[in-house]
Amino acid sequence: DDIMVYAREIVQKEIEKHAADGLGRVDYALATSGGMVVKHSDPYMAGRGVNWFLKGRGVHPNADEMLKPSFGEPGKCFALKGSSGFVQIKLRGAIVPEAVTLEHVAKSVAYDRSTAPKDCRVSGWLQNRDLHTADDEEKMLLLTEFTYDLEKSNAQTFNVLDNTASGLVDTVRLDFTSNHGSPTLTCIYRLRVHGYEPDPSSMTAMQP
Amino acid sequence: DDIMVYAREIVQKEIEKHAADGLGRVDYALATSGGMVVKHSDPYMAGRGVNWFLKGRGVHPNADEMLKPSFGEPGKCFALKGSSGFVQIKLRGAIVPEAVTLEHVAKSVAYDRSTAPKDCRVSGWLQNRDLHTADDEEKMLLLTEFTYDLEKSNAQTFNVLDNTASGLVDTVRLDFTSNHGSPTLTCIYRLRVHGYEPDPSSMTAMQP
Amino acid sequence: DDIMVYAREIVQKEIEKHAADGLGRVDYALATSGGMVVKHSDPYMAGRGVNWFLKGRGVHPNADEMLKPSFGEPGKCFALKGSSGFVQIKLRGAIVPEAVTLEHVAKSVAYDRSTAPKDCRVSGWLQNRDLHTADDEEKMLLLTEFTYDLEKSNAQTFNVLDNTASGLVDTVRLDFTSNHGSPTLTCIYRLRVHGYEPDPSSMTAMQP
Ligand SMILES: [K+]
Ligand SMILES: [K+]
Ligand SMILES: [K+]
Repeated sequence: DDIMVYAREIVQKEIEKHAADGLGRVDYALATSGGMVVKHSDPYMAGRGVNWFLKGRGVHPNADEMLKPSFGEPGKCFALKGSSGFVQIKLRGAIVPEAVTLEHVAKSVAYDRSTAPKDCRVSGWLQNRDLHTADDEEKMLLLTEFTYDLEKSNAQTFNVLDNTASGLVDTVRLDFTSNHGSPTLTCIYRLRVHGYEPDPSSMTAMQP
Repeated sequence: DDIMVYAREIVQKEIEKHAADGLGRVDYALATSGGMVVKHSDPYMAGRGVNWFLKGRGVHPNADEMLKPSFGEPGKCFALKGSSGFVQIKLRGAIVPEAVTLEHVAKSVAYDRSTAPKDCRVSGWLQNRDLHTADDEEKMLLLTEFTYDLEKSNAQTFNVLDNTASGLVDTVRLDFTSNHGSPTLTCIYRLRVHGYEPDPSSMTAMQP
Repeated sequence: DDIMVYAREIVQKEIEKHAADGLGRVDYALATSGGMVVKHSDPYMAGRGVNWFLKGRGVHPNADEMLKPSFGEPGKCFALKGSSGFVQIKLRGAIVPEAVTLEHVAKSVAYDRSTAPKDCRVSGWLQNRDLHTADDEEKMLLLTEFTYDLEKSNAQTFNVLDNTASGLVDTVRLDFTSNHGSPTLTCIYRLRVHGYEPDPSSMTAMQP
């Protein structure tokens, strides 16, 4: 009986986590919260996407798909051309980053997982400073490097390197240098950025 | 072994409930079933919402967000101005109300929960009578009063007071007189109304 | 302790399956993957659907609702007129079919389940051959016949008859000859088609 009470508690806790966006962890890149894709490498052109370049748009209409939940549906992703590329994301606000989560579609419902990203690097920096400087590139911080593993859970979380020193970022960039086999395209189902907002008093101290 | 069989049953039952809109309970306010917001206090104006008053619309385009599931995503709510206000909802049909559920975003994924409603009152009445009378206000029934608690589950259900006497309602109104700290806005993620449809024979008996 | 570790494993596996589109099984009819409704019996006309025939459209705008997840929401279905009818679906590609899943809304959140299909037959054939022939109808294969049972789980899977001989199909048709009581309409929440894509070498062998 005690065991069953405890078993029910485990179940309810795990379902609660599942219901809380799968991880139960705040995501500062989420589209509905203000996160948005601001720049990316060439998108994979299919269907109505073909006219994208002609319209001179900087960001593909499907780009924000990678900042939204996928709910276990194949196809709910942003597809980029080739096996390497990048996506740059403006976060909801400035945070001290602690981890990133890269998610692909679950193995059990996927038609083909050769389009999953493989070797990745995530960088971050603070774009919206009070005083803009011309050397933004130099301020770029390497947050983490990792390999997305097809054999593990489909949402994989990687901690930020050297956390205490990482400072504030409001923009992150994912570079993928390989995928799991497709020569044609790479699909990004979702990228989340975790961390915390510094409290206003510490913010004052940190800014000139 | 027996324990494991039983554990699996618990798990499957809980997941089934989770898959059945989280509560496994019929909601007569759900937007896809015909529920709709018909009136509300001043909405919180942000972005494209700013032109709302200029267009003379009575109901804000985001209002029905509170009659749809949120699926663990921050931002999937209807935002009202200030720390007090109201929302009036036409149900899918006339029911005998038994309970209401107020839901805010889960703690673990929220950026800020100061916008959650706190002290609430839900009333109900029957708008679509065969013979309309001018004294609708007098027929208003107090269904329940409650305080939304940030420490409990994010979907909180409150039973209707004095259930047997409550009679039929097809319209409910949520008044919130305080929130959890935000001076600017209050967000309503979802309001559900539970109960049962009287059977046709009893309906006949109840109507003149 | 060992028991609890094992219990947690059961929970996580079941939630993973739930998160993987509920069944953890590939669906070749899914709308986001390229599946689409190409033909159907008379739709149930309500609201803006009324002008459908006047516009001369062959497929109702709500038809693809049956090729998308419902997420426990009543109303996320394609409604057809009467208690019998059919829907014809083009799959994402040619597959060897193994099973179909018919899903209705969960009992616990449904207003009325008399609109669920009851006696059903699913057929399949290969529409896009290299050499089109005029006798497509004769090539139609009976995949399975079944009765949707309101007392069982709301997503019910039926294996394809005589699997090894069934061959390739890229189009399936669901005929329902009865429903669970509604004289007015039948709602199809979701139909999934499971199977596998033959590998390219076997494909070559199979095609002239
Ligand atoms: K997505
Ligand atoms: K909502
Ligand atoms: K559906």
